[in-house]
Amino acid sequence: MATNGDLNRKLRMALVGGGAGSFIGRVHATAAVLDNRAELVAGALSSDPERAKASAPDYDIKPDRAYGSVDELLSSEAALPEDKRIDFVSVATPNHTHFSIAKAALEAGFNVICDKPMTFDLEQAEELAQLVEKSGAVFALSHNYTGYPLIRQAREMIQSGELGEIQAFRSNYMQGWLRSRLEDDDQKQAAWRTDPAKSGAAGAFGDIGTHAYNLARYMTGLLPEEVSSHLKIFAPGRRLDDYGHAVIRLENGGLGTVTASQISHGRENDLFIEVDGTKGALQWRQEDPNQMMVRRNGQPHQVYTRDPNAPFTNASGAAACRLPAGHPEAFFEAFANVYRFAYDAMADRALGKTFEKTDTIYPNVADGVEGMYFIQQCVASSAENGAWLPLKHPLARK
Amino acid sequence: MATNGDLNRKLRMALVGGGAGSFIGRVHATAAVLDNRAELVAGALSSDPERAKASAPDYDIKPDRAYGSVDELLSSEAALPEDKRIDFVSVATPNHTHFSIAKAALEAGFNVICDKPMTFDLEQAEELAQLVEKSGAVFALSHNYTGYPLIRQAREMIQSGELGEIQAFRSNYMQGWLRSRLEDDDQKQAAWRTDPAKSGAAGAFGDIGTHAYNLARYMTGLLPEEVSSHLKIFAPGRRLDDYGHAVIRLENGGLGTVTASQISHGRENDLFIEVDGTKGALQWRQEDPNQMMVRRNGQPHQVYTRDPNAPFTNASGAAACRLPAGHPEAFFEAFANVYRFAYDAMADRALGKTFEKTDTIYPNVADGVEGMYFIQQCVASSAENGAWLPLKHPLARK
Amino acid sequence: MATNGDLNRKLRMALVGGGAGSFIGRVHATAAVLDNRAELVAGALSSDPERAKASAPDYDIKPDRAYGSVDELLSSEAALPEDKRIDFVSVATPNHTHFSIAKAALEAGFNVICDKPMTFDLEQAEELAQLVEKSGAVFALSHNYTGYPLIRQAREMIQSGELGEIQAFRSNYMQGWLRSRLEDDDQKQAAWRTDPAKSGAAGAFGDIGTHAYNLARYMTGLLPEEVSSHLKIFAPGRRLDDYGHAVIRLENGGLGTVTASQISHGRENDLFIEVDGTKGALQWRQEDPNQMMVRRNGQPHQVYTRDPNAPFTNASGAAACRLPAGHPEAFFEAFANVYRFAYDAMADRALGKTFEKTDTIYPNVADGVEGMYFIQQCVASSAENGAWLPLKHPLARK
Amino acid sequence: MATNGDLNRKLRMALVGGGAGSFIGRVHATAAVLDNRAELVAGALSSDPERAKASAPDYDIKPDRAYGSVDELLSSEAALPEDKRIDFVSVATPNHTHFSIAKAALEAGFNVICDKPMTFDLEQAEELAQLVEKSGAVFALSHNYTGYPLIRQAREMIQSGELGEIQAFRSNYMQGWLRSRLEDDDQKQAAWRTDPAKSGAAGAFGDIGTHAYNLARYMTGLLPEEVSSHLKIFAPGRRLDDYGHAVIRLENGGLGTVTASQISHGRENDLFIEVDGTKGALQWRQEDPNQMMVRRNGQPHQVYTRDPNAPFTNASGAAACRLPAGHPEAFFEAFANVYRFAYDAMADRALGKTFEKTDTIYPNVADGVEGMYFIQQCVASSAENGAWLPLKHPLARK
Repeated sequence: MATNGDLNRKLRMALVGGGAGSFIGRVHATAAVLDNRAELVAGALSSDPERAKASAPDYDIKPDRAYGSVDELLSSEAALPEDKRIDFVSVATPNHTHFSIAKAALEAGFNVICDKPMTFDLEQAEELAQLVEKSGAVFALSHNYTGYPLIRQAREMIQSGELGEIQAFRSNYMQGWLRSRLEDDDQKQAAWRTDPAKSGAAGAFGDIGTHAYNLARYMTGLLPEEVSSHLKIFAPGRRLDDYGHAVIRLENGGLGTVTASQISHGRENDLFIEVDGTKGALQWRQEDPNQMMVRRNGQPHQVYTRDPNAPFTNASGAAACRLPAGHPEAFFEAFANVYRFAYDAMADRALGKTFEKTDTIYPNVADGVEGMYFIQQCVASSAENGAWLPLKHPLARK
Repeated sequence: MATNGDLNRKLRMALVGGGAGSFIGRVHATAAVLDNRAELVAGALSSDPERAKASAPDYDIKPDRAYGSVDELLSSEAALPEDKRIDFVSVATPNHTHFSIAKAALEAGFNVICDKPMTFDLEQAEELAQLVEKSGAVFALSHNYTGYPLIRQAREMIQSGELGEIQAFRSNYMQGWLRSRLEDDDQKQAAWRTDPAKSGAAGAFGDIGTHAYNLARYMTGLLPEEVSSHLKIFAPGRRLDDYGHAVIRLENGGLGTVTASQISHGRENDLFIEVDGTKGALQWRQEDPNQMMVRRNGQPHQVYTRDPNAPFTNASGAAACRLPAGHPEAFFEAFANVYRFAYDAMADRALGKTFEKTDTIYPNVADGVEGMYFIQQCVASSAENGAWLPLKHPLARK
Repeated sequence: MATNGDLNRKLRMALVGGGAGSFIGRVHATAAVLDNRAELVAGALSSDPERAKASAPDYDIKPDRAYGSVDELLSSEAALPEDKRIDFVSVATPNHTHFSIAKAALEAGFNVICDKPMTFDLEQAEELAQLVEKSGAVFALSHNYTGYPLIRQAREMIQSGELGEIQAFRSNYMQGWLRSRLEDDDQKQAAWRTDPAKSGAAGAFGDIGTHAYNLARYMTGLLPEEVSSHLKIFAPGRRLDDYGHAVIRLENGGLGTVTASQISHGRENDLFIEVDGTKGALQWRQEDPNQMMVRRNGQPHQVYTRDPNAPFTNASGAAACRLPAGHPEAFFEAFANVYRFAYDAMADRALGKTFEKTDTIYPNVADGVEGMYFIQQCVASSAENGAWLPLKHPLARK
Repeated sequence: MATNGDLNRKLRMALVGGGAGSFIGRVHATAAVLDNRAELVAGALSSDPERAKASAPDYDIKPDRAYGSVDELLSSEAALPEDKRIDFVSVATPNHTHFSIAKAALEAGFNVICDKPMTFDLEQAEELAQLVEKSGAVFALSHNYTGYPLIRQAREMIQSGELGEIQAFRSNYMQGWLRSRLEDDDQKQAAWRTDPAKSGAAGAFGDIGTHAYNLARYMTGLLPEEVSSHLKIFAPGRRLDDYGHAVIRLENGGLGTVTASQISHGRENDLFIEVDGTKGALQWRQEDPNQMMVRRNGQPHQVYTRDPNAPFTNASGAAACRLPAGHPEAFFEAFANVYRFAYDAMADRALGKTFEKTDTIYPNVADGVEGMYFIQQCVASSAENGAWLPLKHPLARK
């Protein structure tokens, strides 16, 4: 099959963010080209025009397409002939800037891959959802953990009823790097994440709690009803939560919990989920992503490995693999799966075909809205002593 | 050192419960003799006198000391000469009978090792605490998981400040065996545990949630303040919770959670705890009890193994070991550690020496009271939609 | 069922060895009583008569049965009335003394449980085999790792053909405690093990290599043909091997390897075996003995847990369990399983019944002969630059 | 830093092999662009000219640079202006064709990244080594497992003496996919690997045994002296070994073993190595590559995670990382590290700078010679009943 199918060419990408000191910008750049289906050709790599241009050689972006601002990027690219101009913009900047960048990119006609949490607050998120709909563009959200093949395997197993009715989940995201107040040492990653003006209403719960919640929603498809949350600040003097816990009543009568920590010594990026169904149970850990434990009473525990060719692997799981079993895939590949499946949609759009906008395999703008709602309601519940607050957003996808 | 020190003889044990079909009776009998420090000489092995006597050969209890009832056991043994008569009674019966048996044994002057949860309700527990105090007898509660060497190692590490201030714990006890309604099949273990008249106010939360809570309390020494709980019945028609979750506000400002399940497919006896301190974090799993993960930012993760001779093993950890490193110890040894350290106290008592009654290394009657309070408050909170209720009992030990 | 079945009484045990500083003596004493089926009533606990008697209170052995020598033990016990006299002798002394003690005990009419390696050399072993046969007594060898429930499960799975024909095994026993020359520090355990006069012709290969070899033989039932071996002394100045490797040609055309080390840093007691069959493969590790990995192409890896009640557990596996799934069993229980099944035979013998002598579930004198042959041939092969030497002994059981 | 440093442009790559059904061609293409430092611009994707051209769109190779043969590729590219022409050729074809392709590419002045085993036999390998030297080109061999960050960490730890003198290694590469004769089903991967005319003198030992051997050599730097090997064919009728074992005497007196299997049920790509030094021991498994166990007597086991920012990470380990701790890296990244460090050398060559040719961080032509020598000697030793044969090749690097 040709690269990007009938489109038969690489897609052209612009990166916003990603200047020196950025972690996630480089991740986007790497994930985007992993399959040789896209080329990074333009960028506005920093909000500081000089630094933006100076960073371009890092990405082999030619000087004439190394822009000093997002506006310049968008207007210049829009003015290029169709066979040169970018296809999409990846937004890899701090949270408070996502909305305006994504909005402008959509309005300029480009597809968008946006970092999470999607916006600064729920209001922006809801507005963005409308903009996406109006634009007809592809919009994907980098809830990258949904891209792991075994997560997709799990999702299809659950959808198909293999595990029966899901009654409980426990989704946890444990880190330790903010145990001490790194933000005081001018550590760039820590600084904006602990600053309410840049990060939004929540700290750990916005940064990683949303991932844990999104993962549970993505895998199980269960709709929430109400949430009771308890956010804590354990590093004295910090302004945003660095530890939090939420109890979620599910629409079907089940119970879910979400725990997020950034103060647990030595925990690196320990996203870990357990799902209990009436016919079986699942367990998966992001730091060891090529296997998933499936348990059923009366049977040996079963270790499903990521194996695109195994009889036990379903279509969703296989489609997300690049390598045969035993050749481990990891973070980049999962991240790249958000891109890969969004590329399919982008190619279709470029060819004037219709494409799925709601029930996408990649996280979309509705998931972003849900994430912002989750943050808002958890912060509010915690402020009210764990009061039960509604959690089901009208845009939540089934 | 002689067996039981200056006492220089084995202690004499009576078992109540343990007739055919019993699981925990055999565990008590096995754990009690593991160190060759006691001998099982008498029993009232069933509430049915005939079955009680018929079961005696299973334990090599001589016919003349195989009693038809607890009353008969206690009065007959009390009448024996001091050098024949039992030293202690192990109570291994369903929950609703613990109180009356323990009470009678104490009043007859015997030491007691009692199964958990300690009584049927809090009122009984508080009364029993008074009885123990009045009796001067040794009373130990079989919260057996506290007997694992690495749990004791962890406890001393925390007490000594090695992990700094403890701010969070997550204690989980996951089982799957009650996924379906075994109680309908006349399965003895399932039947009494799911029957409010025998088990008490809680199901899973009483049976195993109390273990998870006790373990966290034992390891960390942290006092609770309030609890908000959510108990669920996932097997349709069951009368007691088979899944539950509690959020606990700690007196020091920290946050703890307890999760217990008996409906999670394939989970066998998965008691699992994580503890976060300002200087380090711990992780331990009962099903793999000979190692404990200790994490500290900036250091490789450290796997503490159960090694009585290692420089990194503290006195509490070493004292609880029977075997060198790599020769795994497990459930029986941990269970036997409740006995072993209670034997020290029993020997002291028999020799007329004083012995520690409050800050015992083994779980005691105060822990039993706390357990019953935990059950009561969790049940009540859950009934009130997760309302915050007090959890710190006046008898709670530091 | 009554204790020891129709015998309906505990068996009476004498311990030889086990004085202060002994590790394995205490293990025997503990394992022997674990099921409350035996009572330790007599001992010759040290070759030093005074120390022997002084150690008796440690085991609650009464002074009148605390003997100063093996001879005294055997003659005195033989003179006791039948309902007092010991049933069996456990030999827990350094290797070079096993033969004479076992011989004397057998000649005195007692059953014997003997430590491994069985004797000092092959000649003694072959003589002992004849003595056992002549005596009609029960003789068990403490190749304790054969007692693990999942090893017995594996053995039956292999025997029944579930894994097809076995073509390869890799059996490894890794320790690190003799990395430095502890023997120079007068460490008792190290001293005799590294002394050719007490340990025999091999060091690590005799002490633990034999366990690894025995385990592979026990599990697979495969007969060996030839061996090529390479023994090394890595601690300068040591007199016996502390590392070794053997390649074994199997009678059926397969290939096995045995590796043993006592100089691998931090390895505690890491006995680890892998078995490849045409229909499936097994993997088991002694330090995590309650699970076994079973793999078959095209299926998820299967984790067989030790679960006496599971449909996937066979009769041999279930019979070796004492606890339900998730309640880990470990070293003592496996050790006690050598005793437990030997007790069945002892009870039969005491009742005048016939009992299995050749194809015993517990390791027997033939296995001991094989072990000594393995040591002898490995030492010889290594001395001849890894020459292929025969390994199939005429007494080797199928 | 600009892409490829002072070169400040992407390198241009040609792929040989990689047509439909190829696994390793796609891996090369993916790994090569992972860091956005190269662009795949040309290819001779199949030995069948038509299929070669038809496969080009899969890689977004433009039709005018989709060549029908290697000769056409090399002559056409050499004729292009310097700023268009390829910098290097990646050889991803069956073993028997590597030599002629690499030779031609070198003679045409291009750098080469070649699959392993490097050639069909030792003679070709030695000739290729001379050609590389004469050419002045960069030649890297895709022993990709050397690219894992923790392998590089381990290598530097060993080189710096942290583990003392290395005395033993055990390197294993276990697979199960050739358990049955897939070659009979026309499975492309299986067909050439089991065909002596295409694979060379060895099967499993050439395909994966060389990886295991190379990994041990790369990590430890220990020179071999002699080898005794035992290769087996377990699938009846197969023509090349599918299981093998080699014992290696090391120049420093140590002992190494290499085991390779392609018939072990359910083993996917289980490359697993243990290294014993006088001061510490290492253990690493390719299927779980982001952690490495480091053990030292008297210390807790230490789990070194892949963490570029940790104090315990050395320069080699950090330089091989792309992501922070807990964001797992895997197969592609390791593969890409062979490319990445070869790119440094290619950029230097393009700029006319000198670059390291012998002690390269990436596997080079000398390692390829060693690999072919290893295969030749193992095959010969096995044919002579495991006779000891020399293993130290004159070109072997220290």
